[in-house]
Amino acid sequence: MTFLDELTAALGPERVITDHDLLISYRRDEADLCEAGMPLAVVRPEETAHVAAAVTIAARHGVPVVPQGARTGLAGGANAVDGCLVVSMLAMDRIVDLDTANRVATVQPGVVNAVLARGALAEGLRYPPDPGSWESSTIGGNVATNAGGMCCVKYGVTTEYVLGLEVVLADGRVLRTGRRTPKGVAGYDLTRLFVGSEGTLGIITEITVALRPAAEESLTMVAVFPTTAAAGDAVNRIFAAGLSPSLLELLDRVHLEALEAYRPMGLDTTAAALLLAAVDTGSRAAADLEVIAELARQAGAGEVWQATDATEAAELLQARRLAHPAMEHLALSLYEHGGLIIDDIAVPRTRLAELLDDIVEIAAKHDVPVGVVGHAGDGNLHPNIVVDRADPVSVAAGQRVFDEIMERGLALGGTCTGEHGVGLLKRDWLATELGEVGVDIQRAVKSALDPTNLLNPGKVLR
Amino acid sequence: MTFLDELTAALGPERVITDHDLLISYRRDEADLCEAGMPLAVVRPEETAHVAAAVTIAARHGVPVVPQGARTGLAGGANAVDGCLVVSMLAMDRIVDLDTANRVATVQPGVVNAVLARGALAEGLRYPPDPGSWESSTIGGNVATNAGGMCCVKYGVTTEYVLGLEVVLADGRVLRTGRRTPKGVAGYDLTRLFVGSEGTLGIITEITVALRPAAEESLTMVAVFPTTAAAGDAVNRIFAAGLSPSLLELLDRVHLEALEAYRPMGLDTTAAALLLAAVDTGSRAAADLEVIAELARQAGAGEVWQATDATEAAELLQARRLAHPAMEHLALSLYEHGGLIIDDIAVPRTRLAELLDDIVEIAAKHDVPVGVVGHAGDGNLHPNIVVDRADPVSVAAGQRVFDEIMERGLALGGTCTGEHGVGLLKRDWLATELGEVGVDIQRAVKSALDPTNLLNPGKVLR
Repeated sequence: MTFLDELTAALGPERVITDHDLLISYRRDEADLCEAGMPLAVVRPEETAHVAAAVTIAARHGVPVVPQGARTGLAGGANAVDGCLVVSMLAMDRIVDLDTANRVATVQPGVVNAVLARGALAEGLRYPPDPGSWESSTIGGNVATNAGGMCCVKYGVTTEYVLGLEVVLADGRVLRTGRRTPKGVAGYDLTRLFVGSEGTLGIITEITVALRPAAEESLTMVAVFPTTAAAGDAVNRIFAAGLSPSLLELLDRVHLEALEAYRPMGLDTTAAALLLAAVDTGSRAAADLEVIAELARQAGAGEVWQATDATEAAELLQARRLAHPAMEHLALSLYEHGGLIIDDIAVPRTRLAELLDDIVEIAAKHDVPVGVVGHAGDGNLHPNIVVDRADPVSVAAGQRVFDEIMERGLALGGTCTGEHGVGLLKRDWLATELGEVGVDIQRAVKSALDPTNLLNPGKVLR
Repeated sequence: MTFLDELTAALGPERVITDHDLLISYRRDEADLCEAGMPLAVVRPEETAHVAAAVTIAARHGVPVVPQGARTGLAGGANAVDGCLVVSMLAMDRIVDLDTANRVATVQPGVVNAVLARGALAEGLRYPPDPGSWESSTIGGNVATNAGGMCCVKYGVTTEYVLGLEVVLADGRVLRTGRRTPKGVAGYDLTRLFVGSEGTLGIITEITVALRPAAEESLTMVAVFPTTAAAGDAVNRIFAAGLSPSLLELLDRVHLEALEAYRPMGLDTTAAALLLAAVDTGSRAAADLEVIAELARQAGAGEVWQATDATEAAELLQARRLAHPAMEHLALSLYEHGGLIIDDIAVPRTRLAELLDDIVEIAAKHDVPVGVVGHAGDGNLHPNIVVDRADPVSVAAGQRVFDEIMERGLALGGTCTGEHGVGLLKRDWLATELGEVGVDIQRAVKSALDPTNLLNPGKVLR
């Protein structure tokens, strides 16, 4: 039998897509400047056995396998390669178990982050990881990329919450890793090896996560700073004071201007940076926020607004939420085919101001607009590089800016990805960051689990 | 040159121990019923290059290498194998950097946990992991075993704090994993693969850990329960109420009796269990503790004592601190060569009472005294099995008890080690827990990193 015949016989024709127009929609994630191939077929498994069958058949025929969630990734990690089998996990979207007494949930990978988060909340619990895409991205995709979000500064990234996994391996066997107990150290930590492995070591078919008590209501404030150094100083002062903000976000001047052009809010577009901070420390929250406001003023903030209730806090968060659409609006106001190269880099928290200044300098040198938004409390910045997609010269200039930012970030003791993952976008920078021994050992792990390079080939490692 | 000549030439004679009487002291950790071999030599490296040289020379001569910290482990993971080279990391005991602004510390593996914890505290910071051995165990050993402790119920185990590592690999090359930034997801998470790998994948020569703000003062209470079910119910109620105690420990009746015989405190030895709870929620602590006390009463606690200040809290903690010496005292009061098999098992929090009852039943069936102390909030229990070391029949009975407890724990959805690691003690139970595919993949990872099985052979995996 041919590959497609076998696949259809095993999974049923209703779970196999070969229509060319439909296939096109499975080619890529949201890193739209990364290359994407054309899949031979897409399967939409509904249970682990379907995934195992699909991988086994693909292995026999030497057809590369690319797992996909909601394709909201920003590094090309879910992009098809030519002639591959895409395994779309979206139909495996069941919350298998929500165990409130033990504060754990077991879900299939296609469950959308917001569905789990709301399901937990209905039981007085919380699933903290909150990537920007949380309304559409899946837990499987979040786990595969080890996604971050705005709450990470206090609550950590996805991997902190993953207790155990079920994974279909490259040979079609089903592996269970980890545990369902709050604590456990039995054997090598394969769970966290699969978290962030971007589908290159196995296909995750079930996930057990830890839940936390529902968050207390948070209070929020905004401060604008005349210089990036002042904003960086404020961040340092907040941490030096022993505070743990539940959110500490930064918007740079380019973003402030873009926001004012998109939805005027009266933001000071002469400011160098805006910091948005929140605390969720219950009865202490108002006092903690007052301390943060005072530290911001001491660091040189021009204006400081404190929200006194949840409604005002939500209004202040708007500026952050609109950052991305505002930058897209800016790109489209500059070029008919304007677009963004969204970067992701993390440095030690104390080097934040230096990196911000470096980015301004690099952007000016190449005459490319770059707006920076970031999780300041984590030292994790997202430079948004504006390019004209229709103009190869503009795209090339954008890519030079991207590379120079990476170079400076690594020189400051940083890492090439804080939360978006490597995918196709960062492979060369990952190799630079890891060095020769690091790459060798990453390759050794890949070879041990996927000796024929069947799973998501060419991602993470070249 | 012979192996020893090469070693001495490379590291200097002052760092190589071959004296038989000295070698004996490097044979084993504190799991004294596990087998231990006789090392050929011990080296005490003072820098990474010494470790790399020792491993390179050992690899060339086919001499197995066993890394050791303070040998406070409880699973035989640091025990010598016959003819091996022991690499004792105790002389690499420098805090390389304590970066208060970024809240990270970089240490050599021989730094004692308490030294790092006190160093951090002097800067207003905290290194949370607090294994019972914290005054003597090293950060390297804590990382190698992924050690837990009493604060884990709120603050997690060692792996949550490890950001990056330097590791000497089986071929003598030096690998750097992870990062120094608060956030980062670049490539496979090798850092957490090495954490808990018990020296079987590489020798850790430097560790970068995250620090937290210093803890707030904690308030403590004790409650005694007529039945294990009531104690388990209290634990469930505390979590269902959304509380996050900073400590939630349990002592069973055998421990209460042992404590009263060792240091009379007026404990109710007819009670089935004692729960010790602490909260460190600052201005809310007194109110939170009052809620916990009320939940304990609702669950059926006979007596509840609440500490009103830190001094009283410290007094209540005494009962927990004296648990181990009290059980050793019990063992020696029963047998001239009385000793303990210290077990470590974790189950879902809600199955705690069942496991406690099962242990009482198993102990009675074999007529072996078993006292249980545990991290109740984590579902992590340490049954202490009393045996007469001089009597093989008693030791065999103790081992049957050990095996039956493991069997029941796994049947309750548990794991064979909550925090002590696998070492020699739990290899067969690990294999049972992992299953065939799990063992295969663990072996594949081991082979990828240490193809000749040079490093700590026979530990974790047979």
